Amino acid sequence: MNKFRVEHDSLGEVQVPAARLWGAQTQRSIENFPIGRRDYIWGREVIRGFGILKKACALANQALGQLAEEKAALIVRAAEEVIAGQWDAEFPLVVFQTGSGTQSNMNANEVIANRAIQLAGGVLGSKKPIDPNDDVNHSQSSNDTFPTVMHIAAAEVIENALLPAVAALLAVFEAKSLAFADVVMTGRTHLQDATPITLGQVISGWAAQLHAAMSGIHATLPGLYELAIGGTAVGTGLNAHPNFGATAAEFIALETGKPFRTAHNKYAALSAHDAVVAASGSLRVLAGAAMKIANDVRWYASGPRAGIGELLIPENEPGSSIMPGKINPTQSEALTMVAVQVFGNDHAVAFAGSQGNFQLNVFKPVMLHNLLDSARLLAEALGAFNTHCAAGIAPAYGKIAENLAKNLMLVTALNPHIGYAAAAKVALKAHHEGLSLRAAALALGVTTGEEFDEWVKPEEMTRPLRIENQP
Amino acid sequence: MNKFRVEHDSLGEVQVPAARLWGAQTQRSIENFPIGRRDYIWGREVIRGFGILKKACALANQALGQLAEEKAALIVRAAEEVIAGQWDAEFPLVVFQTGSGTQSNMNANEVIANRAIQLAGGVLGSKKPIDPNDDVNHSQSSNDTFPTVMHIAAAEVIENALLPAVAALLAVFEAKSLAFADVVMTGRTHLQDATPITLGQVISGWAAQLHAAMSGIHATLPGLYELAIGGTAVGTGLNAHPNFGATAAEFIALETGKPFRTAHNKYAALSAHDAVVAASGSLRVLAGAAMKIANDVRWYASGPRAGIGELLIPENEPGSSIMPGKINPTQSEALTMVAVQVFGNDHAVAFAGSQGNFQLNVFKPVMLHNLLDSARLLAEALGAFNTHCAAGIAPAYGKIAENLAKNLMLVTALNPHIGYAAAAKVALKAHHEGLSLRAAALALGVTTGEEFDEWVKPEEMTRPLRIENQP
Amino acid sequence: MNKFRVEHDSLGEVQVPAARLWGAQTQRSIENFPIGRRDYIWGREVIRGFGILKKACALANQALGQLAEEKAALIVRAAEEVIAGQWDAEFPLVVFQTGSGTQSNMNANEVIANRAIQLAGGVLGSKKPIDPNDDVNHSQSSNDTFPTVMHIAAAEVIENALLPAVAALLAVFEAKSLAFADVVMTGRTHLQDATPITLGQVISGWAAQLHAAMSGIHATLPGLYELAIGGTAVGTGLNAHPNFGATAAEFIALETGKPFRTAHNKYAALSAHDAVVAASGSLRVLAGAAMKIANDVRWYASGPRAGIGELLIPENEPGSSIMPGKINPTQSEALTMVAVQVFGNDHAVAFAGSQGNFQLNVFKPVMLHNLLDSARLLAEALGAFNTHCAAGIAPAYGKIAENLAKNLMLVTALNPHIGYAAAAKVALKAHHEGLSLRAAALALGVTTGEEFDEWVKPEEMTRPLRIENQP
Amino acid sequence: MNKFRVEHDSLGEVQVPAARLWGAQTQRSIENFPIGRRDYIWGREVIRGFGILKKACALANQALGQLAEEKAALIVRAAEEVIAGQWDAEFPLVVFQTGSGTQSNMNANEVIANRAIQLAGGVLGSKKPIDPNDDVNHSQSSNDTFPTVMHIAAAEVIENALLPAVAALLAVFEAKSLAFADVVMTGRTHLQDATPITLGQVISGWAAQLHAAMSGIHATLPGLYELAIGGTAVGTGLNAHPNFGATAAEFIALETGKPFRTAHNKYAALSAHDAVVAASGSLRVLAGAAMKIANDVRWYASGPRAGIGELLIPENEPGSSIMPGKINPTQSEALTMVAVQVFGNDHAVAFAGSQGNFQLNVFKPVMLHNLLDSARLLAEALGAFNTHCAAGIAPAYGKIAENLAKNLMLVTALNPHIGYAAAAKVALKAHHEGLSLRAAALALGVTTGEEFDEWVKPEEMTRPLRIENQP
Repeated sequence: MNKFRVEHDSLGEVQVPAARLWGAQTQRSIENFPIGRRDYIWGREVIRGFGILKKACALANQALGQLAEEKAALIVRAAEEVIAGQWDAEFPLVVFQTGSGTQSNMNANEVIANRAIQLAGGVLGSKKPIDPNDDVNHSQSSNDTFPTVMHIAAAEVIENALLPAVAALLAVFEAKSLAFADVVMTGRTHLQDATPITLGQVISGWAAQLHAAMSGIHATLPGLYELAIGGTAVGTGLNAHPNFGATAAEFIALETGKPFRTAHNKYAALSAHDAVVAASGSLRVLAGAAMKIANDVRWYASGPRAGIGELLIPENEPGSSIMPGKINPTQSEALTMVAVQVFGNDHAVAFAGSQGNFQLNVFKPVMLHNLLDSARLLAEALGAFNTHCAAGIAPAYGKIAENLAKNLMLVTALNPHIGYAAAAKVALKAHHEGLSLRAAALALGVTTGEEFDEWVKPEEMTRPLRIENQP
Repeated sequence: MNKFRVEHDSLGEVQVPAARLWGAQTQRSIENFPIGRRDYIWGREVIRGFGILKKACALANQALGQLAEEKAALIVRAAEEVIAGQWDAEFPLVVFQTGSGTQSNMNANEVIANRAIQLAGGVLGSKKPIDPNDDVNHSQSSNDTFPTVMHIAAAEVIENALLPAVAALLAVFEAKSLAFADVVMTGRTHLQDATPITLGQVISGWAAQLHAAMSGIHATLPGLYELAIGGTAVGTGLNAHPNFGATAAEFIALETGKPFRTAHNKYAALSAHDAVVAASGSLRVLAGAAMKIANDVRWYASGPRAGIGELLIPENEPGSSIMPGKINPTQSEALTMVAVQVFGNDHAVAFAGSQGNFQLNVFKPVMLHNLLDSARLLAEALGAFNTHCAAGIAPAYGKIAENLAKNLMLVTALNPHIGYAAAAKVALKAHHEGLSLRAAALALGVTTGEEFDEWVKPEEMTRPLRIENQP
Repeated sequence: MNKFRVEHDSLGEVQVPAARLWGAQTQRSIENFPIGRRDYIWGREVIRGFGILKKACALANQALGQLAEEKAALIVRAAEEVIAGQWDAEFPLVVFQTGSGTQSNMNANEVIANRAIQLAGGVLGSKKPIDPNDDVNHSQSSNDTFPTVMHIAAAEVIENALLPAVAALLAVFEAKSLAFADVVMTGRTHLQDATPITLGQVISGWAAQLHAAMSGIHATLPGLYELAIGGTAVGTGLNAHPNFGATAAEFIALETGKPFRTAHNKYAALSAHDAVVAASGSLRVLAGAAMKIANDVRWYASGPRAGIGELLIPENEPGSSIMPGKINPTQSEALTMVAVQVFGNDHAVAFAGSQGNFQLNVFKPVMLHNLLDSARLLAEALGAFNTHCAAGIAPAYGKIAENLAKNLMLVTALNPHIGYAAAAKVALKAHHEGLSLRAAALALGVTTGEEFDEWVKPEEMTRPLRIENQP
Repeated sequence: MNKFRVEHDSLGEVQVPAARLWGAQTQRSIENFPIGRRDYIWGREVIRGFGILKKACALANQALGQLAEEKAALIVRAAEEVIAGQWDAEFPLVVFQTGSGTQSNMNANEVIANRAIQLAGGVLGSKKPIDPNDDVNHSQSSNDTFPTVMHIAAAEVIENALLPAVAALLAVFEAKSLAFADVVMTGRTHLQDATPITLGQVISGWAAQLHAAMSGIHATLPGLYELAIGGTAVGTGLNAHPNFGATAAEFIALETGKPFRTAHNKYAALSAHDAVVAASGSLRVLAGAAMKIANDVRWYASGPRAGIGELLIPENEPGSSIMPGKINPTQSEALTMVAVQVFGNDHAVAFAGSQGNFQLNVFKPVMLHNLLDSARLLAEALGAFNTHCAAGIAPAYGKIAENLAKNLMLVTALNPHIGYAAAAKVALKAHHEGLSLRAAALALGVTTGEEFDEWVKPEEMTRPLRIENQP
């Protein structure tokens, strides 16, 4: 058996590995774009997205009388195998190719056509009974299929992987916020000791950030639900049935269970990808929140002796072979590195999104890659952070109490009883002489020990009660 | 009369210019932060925001029995003058100061207190009858006032300046989209000639981008409507009446006519500014859309002879003294430069937003500055672009027709009549011999002149009719 | 007297305020570009740069026989006044204008021409005896003048303002590194306690970063020294004497004392500004170093009680009215905010730098603005940080000693004496029971008190001596 | 045979796949960091870098009497196999792990130790005769090894892959610049027709950009040549021989043929990676230049009929099945997408570089990944662009001549002969009536046909001769 089969296209002959389902155009792309072949080959989400799209288009073409039922059925079978992940190895192309993603569209057309041919008992590469262009790509252009796949893949990874990961971490934080509602600790502003706060309140702030980030991500989904399919080459829908876009979108919605619909304006849908930029921007907000939270966790856990040391986090790996207690906050480190990567990815997405010309933006693949990468990395990193760190966060009660006890800011509680001036003297004396507030107050004779203990209750400073009318 | 008055704070004496309403802390900031004094002094929106906040706080304090009616009335009068812009020169501080914006908060407290003292016939700097801390700043901390001003100022400039500017340009595009609905021109993908499109369709794509960008901006407003006021120093609301935040927010809503409300979680509201990051991200989407649109305009207007040349734009300045017709697309250039600046500003906002620690993010001023700058620049640049360019865009009918006539892509229209193979021969002959499609078709004898003119109608390629069932 | 004089250009009449030195084209720009007029009017460096350029061009034209001596003399006198700052108010234009900076070039031409006319006793706007185009702009085009001014202004602000500010801070750090060479403190990696280090060593790291950043900035200067002047409209030098570029560059070098020279390739010099991108990138390195250093300072100074607390920094403003010792690290905050702004500015510069087309990059003004802004902000912020913070940094000896004493990592010093296994037991016992290492060692009976004190000397862990051969 | 072997570390037992060379710490990392396992596993350069480092360290330890010769020899043999790529599959870890890269350092230690054990006929996991920590990692810490590997890997990929790729493209451009030195074409500024330029001049501008970008990259190499090795945990060199860093660097230099040397300041070398940020910034300059060049190429090649159309580029893939001549500029698209990716990567590098604290920056892996990715992508994309596009660029002589002939800007050449006023009339008439300049000149009777042809020679406008003295 020959190792290669010869395919033809308008530029001449192409040798394709004999057993491969892909065809001439995929093969040319492999040869012409040896760029990023290690890390930038399209993955599961995009292949699945193409499968969903091609199945929906076959069904739409059939429904609109554009494709014979038998052809549609073959395409649907082949596409379903692609959806299921059976042919991932037949998608060898990389991000850095034609800026319209044409070659990946043709890769999908070729693989599905050849697989359909196999299913029909035909000859690979014969284009019979299924032609990659005339049948699989019927009523379509790369210019509308690729952005459709962008939206399918992005919505799926965001909704199916990322948002559940955020929600899981949010649930852990909400539970911990309640569990530690009474753990009073030193507040810190400008990195300086400030008035008390509870650990529950601190964690509720993290939860609120995650909650808002999720809302922001949700707000970008409607943009992703709008699909370019139906616009064909330049947005006018030339060569497609007028109802094709809407019908295909319905089948995509059916397949995915998501409210995809045909884009209101196809010209914008091909020449700009502002919905992708917006989605990426919303992931950047989440990344920023993750950075703040992960930084708080590692700073609170810093020490064990000469740092803040108020939180305990799980020890997942040996820190140092010599120093017990050196628990490096590795999950925080991985998460903040992911946050930084998401910032970089987002930069690429937004830059690329601004570079469309006329009827096409030819930075589609790089936009898709970076958005998916951000969503996936965040999902994975938040998941690992949750499992291996957040779920095990616990207060270091002793250190919390010790830090709180020496906090000079507690002096505020004396104001109503001994007056601002006397309270300030207490604080000054404590500060300058390295005393506790209690010791300073007693030394100055402005309170008794009992009074001090009665008046200075940090926990009450975290739950302001009704303040009496003052004037 | 002395040129200076001497004020005291806990660090000692400060000499303040005698006639100035500001006090010791503002003066110290001037001296300690000689950074960016040329371009980074706070402007109208922020000063107005402080006026609104301080008025609302005085009213809230009064309503909750925390401030005597006479004091509140004096503060309100002074704050209203600040709102009106009467005392802008008394706000000399810059962005690069304390990261909490404390010094600008004190600047507002000092100016309003001293102006209230003037209104009451008192002595500047005497703190009688109005004390900047105890009265103007009552129930407040820089940590909750400054983020409140961030949201007030941002919402105002976005809603009152930016969105109307976008809407105005959108209206112009929508009108032109209708006006030029029948102007058929060459479509372009990959910068290469493609199937026809109408100018109306092209412009509808621009309009759709603006429309989506506006929606995206609107979606970030609810986050800005949530106000930190009431959280005081660390979010617990220490030293403020439990209803203070909600009441102050109501007064702010009343003053601005916007649905401001108290933030759900004050800990996040002080230690993170994700709503500001999200708003900035939505402006970046608009900037990206503006870049695409402005680029299209200048490329379509390129020439006059050796470019695309399909659009005419207003001539606002002499291009070249020697070459008539050299109309430089200067409004596009200014708008794309603004887009680039907004990308930079947004980068700063997002970076800063990720850098909070514990109970405070101390990058507040730089975040506010960049968000406001982006909103203002976009409003101004879109306004200028609209007035001086977009409103005057007109088709260069001759060049459009000339380019369209020679577009080989029109051959697609022959397919149904003479078959794909024959059509391809026509296109090839035209391409290789530099002929028109019509000439090539006649030379090959595949159509008559009448048939060609009957079949090749570019305008019909822009309005796909129902396609007959094909199988 | 009339308030306006009427000037004419090829588009018709323009009313210019009668007393102004600027002319028609400046006036049109004011009217057509109401964008960023508050913060984006060109400042001293750019105006001075134009003065230097125009003086040099007049001298070069005269030297090459292109301009009569009397005309050149008048232009030189006027340009020298511009250099000196006498006419800054006559430069009202903003960054967001024509992307070539044409209007600012014309602004300079008009002001210098009219001022020369005044000096010659002529009538403003008469163009006699000096014509803004034919005389002041002789042998020039905006396309080569503006990038020349970009390089002059950038090199001047970097060399004259920024580098001295970095050097001053570097000198302070070097002095402090020596002064605190013997202050042994807790090292920290992953925010966790690690083996000891001296404060002098810590500060030497900051100094090394500044030193490397300065080298990086220096390495970009040769690119800035290459001047576009002589390329005229598209780089070919049309309408300029073949020696004009080189001669003008020599006069610019003479005026500035810097080794400016004519650019090797004028086509690149007009259509790309990679030297500006490179310079901006080198400032970003400095900004990143500044962020690391300023963060270290504020974390080391965190507390006063419940933080790291190992450094004392000057108290420049009252922190809290109630809490003595709450010294907010405001200079660190201002500096890190500047760092963030520089990152944003740099983003804009690099983006803009990539957007040239054919013979011109039309993002010149926005690139120049951001580079100058970064250089100036860094100079000012590093200066303030130095004066108001770095110069006053001092060790908090007590806290340093306290933190060091309890550092479990010191156990490493016992290894050679009691073996790894026993040392690990000491550390574990100390960690689990909250003991000092010394107490744990004594309790376990593995050392005497004298032995412990003899063997555990943190200062020796910071100065590794020759290690004996081990195998 | 068991599928797993059990290893122990201080946290307990770990099951490691029996045949794997890696050990407990690598295994823990796999389990704890399921983040980015598809695209972010370390590749060849980093593995090779670790091999080089570990070999050099073994040799240095031996030379300094710290490691027995037999041990060193075993480590060297194993490390050489790692260098050669024999064990890449034993390096399963990802970028998003501990921020110090500790786990990758341990991965290298474990693999080399176990391979050395195999070579010595020992038992995997027995740590005899070679212990991963005590022997392979002798005198080292992750904190100094990982940044050393960062510099080795970065310098190698930049010097060995990237710079040759740039140089190759530069050589092609230089050759084409000479080859097309006489092809006079329309210059374009502001996208508008301008005075003539030769294609050789245009391409010389591209070459100049590449040349400058290479210089900029070269300027960052000395920073990368400085190695952290010898600093161990916090920069003090604790537990390493005082000469260890210098000696190891010498062996690394020997192995790589590059002038690596020990870093001047180890504290900075561990806690900051400004040399990496600087290197990334220099790649961003190259990316920006690539974007400008690739954009020029595709715009010049736009058409074939209704665009600029002045350059022909190779047709590598079928453009459209129906339209001959539709050559999509796919190599330009891939290259500009890579440029955008590099901008994003660079953003991540710079952000991460600013986030060090105290004695360590824990964003090392993400910095390394992005720098290497940028260098590799640029090398590959510039290579593909060169081979498949640049090498085949050719002038479209007909279109160039046609565009040039109708360029109104040529009127400038009439000035010296018929005066500015008459020339302007010619240009105006041509512009308004759509005539050629020649036709307009003849119609106005200001030149004869012969005179016009004699005087208007665009090629002379590209090579300005000496201009006579004018005054």
